[in-house]
Amino acid sequence: MKDVRIIVTGGTIDKVHDPISEALIFAKDNTSQIPEILSLGRCRFAHLQQIMLKDSQNFTDADRATIVKAVQDAPQTSIVVTHGTVTMGQSARWLAERISGKTVVFTGAMRPYSLSSSDGSFNLGGAVIAAQILPEGVYGVMNGQVFDAAHLHKNTELGRFDI
Amino acid sequence: MKDVRIIVTGGTIDKVHDPISEALIFAKDNTSQIPEILSLGRCRFAHLQQIMLKDSQNFTDADRATIVKAVQDAPQTSIVVTHGTVTMGQSARWLAERISGKTVVFTGAMRPYSLSSSDGSFNLGGAVIAAQILPEGVYGVMNGQVFDAAHLHKNTELGRFDI
Amino acid sequence: MKDVRIIVTGGTIDKVHDPISEALIFAKDNTSQIPEILSLGRCRFAHLQQIMLKDSQNFTDADRATIVKAVQDAPQTSIVVTHGTVTMGQSARWLAERISGKTVVFTGAMRPYSLSSSDGSFNLGGAVIAAQILPEGVYGVMNGQVFDAAHLHKNTELGRFDI
Amino acid sequence: MKDVRIIVTGGTIDKVHDPISEALIFAKDNTSQIPEILSLGRCRFAHLQQIMLKDSQNFTDADRATIVKAVQDAPQTSIVVTHGTVTMGQSARWLAERISGKTVVFTGAMRPYSLSSSDGSFNLGGAVIAAQILPEGVYGVMNGQVFDAAHLHKNTELGRFDI
Repeated sequence: MKDVRIIVTGGTIDKVHDPISEALIFAKDNTSQIPEILSLGRCRFAHLQQIMLKDSQNFTDADRATIVKAVQDAPQTSIVVTHGTVTMGQSARWLAERISGKTVVFTGAMRPYSLSSSDGSFNLGGAVIAAQILPEGVYGVMNGQVFDAAHLHKNTELGRFDI
Repeated sequence: MKDVRIIVTGGTIDKVHDPISEALIFAKDNTSQIPEILSLGRCRFAHLQQIMLKDSQNFTDADRATIVKAVQDAPQTSIVVTHGTVTMGQSARWLAERISGKTVVFTGAMRPYSLSSSDGSFNLGGAVIAAQILPEGVYGVMNGQVFDAAHLHKNTELGRFDI
Repeated sequence: MKDVRIIVTGGTIDKVHDPISEALIFAKDNTSQIPEILSLGRCRFAHLQQIMLKDSQNFTDADRATIVKAVQDAPQTSIVVTHGTVTMGQSARWLAERISGKTVVFTGAMRPYSLSSSDGSFNLGGAVIAAQILPEGVYGVMNGQVFDAAHLHKNTELGRFDI
Repeated sequence: MKDVRIIVTGGTIDKVHDPISEALIFAKDNTSQIPEILSLGRCRFAHLQQIMLKDSQNFTDADRATIVKAVQDAPQTSIVVTHGTVTMGQSARWLAERISGKTVVFTGAMRPYSLSSSDGSFNLGGAVIAAQILPEGVYGVMNGQVFDAAHLHKNTELGRFDI
């Protein structure tokens, strides 16, 4: 296997239910769900790095620059970035212009992992594999498909990436 | 994306709890859990083919020949085979000697998908991606790693593939 | 057992995740989660009646009058009402002034049933039992406790009923 | 609320999946699932006492005597006993002849809590309520119904208590 770094930025995959406000929020103690997904997936070798927990619709270029720096600073060449779905494609294209020598795979979920029946495990499982075997470049893995950065688009009306 | 065929053969990933016998069995109506994993993973394009539901410890060479035939008959070149973990490596090596021109990826789970907290979604998500991007050959994808057939071994004492 | 009617009005217990808006909403096809909770609880004898799917913070006296009518019209004397937690106590007290000859038990959840790790099954399991064995009156059952209508108060700051 | 003691004896409700043997067993570190069910049910006041983790089909009168002693020694008068379903009725009747001055409610599950879709939460939620409001005596609460000890019988062929 190749050494993989997983950079956590937030997004739906990391939302949890807040019984006080009754809304979906990021955990108040700032913990991510990704460690539990990896644990259930019995994936023990990935290096986890949580750089923020943020809705991707609120992402700025400064946030994207933070991701670029984390990717560049990583000793690994196989990188997974967990990210909200709304601007995942935009971030992927932003990185594609600024990163070389690495395989970067964006992933996330349509449904929070903390809810039952999430697509988060399936997607992360795919992204971890893709990061190890795809050539250099920036990609998205969602719902069983690999998209290059240029073709990574969420259909916000249908809530899917494949149309 | 590449067209992917998923050939279902059984194994732990497909076990369900029987409240009468209080044991883990295959569903009495012979249905597989794989369609639900794909549905939650929002993976809509894979072609599913259930050829048996069997414990891999009871696999015979006749069963393996049935898998070989299904792989050869498939119009797709990207194939996932869901399979029990006990003899997954043995079946992979058996196929590796008999198949060419296809990418075949074995996967399964340590914990039935029908139980909560299964590794089934994570593994299948990885296998579906691997089948699309790995070169021809026979592989296993378990718990975030790709193994070639020659190195696909379950450590039955520790219940894992990576040691 | 006593014949039990379950009157569904909505509330957090019945919320589901909408992957398009990424919010918790009532199912767009207006279906309730209560039938599935009963099915998993293998509770086969209860009569289900869905009269609305509404956030209890938006409840009006007209909504409460609708509940009163459903309770009065029911042939059963053991009644469970699923209800949002915010105004559960207020509705219970409103009913307590208008209903006699019935045992009415309000219940709901702090966390939607459609998310994993919900308190919905535990609460509904308690309410179904309470409705069969408590004397006439209006009660709430939440988180293992029985409250009479007068003492059914959500601590909205702590997100619990027991303080 | 009344002070409730929950006496844990094992049974299906407490089984977990062992990825090594691929069977349903009690946790090797002897931990029970009941604390997690109570935690998700946000039931904070019950006193938990684990006296064994055992399949009820292997219960002996010595095991039943251990339950009797735990019930008699408890300062609480409201007692829940989690127990396997196979001999739940037999144990209940055995206790009914030996206990007075207490309300004892047996409960358990048809499907292990550690699997998704268990009836465990629903049943335990009902038992905790029943133990607080039923008069002295020995009962079972399963799947939304209260049974007195004399009528607590598992239909092992159908896997249910209500027929």
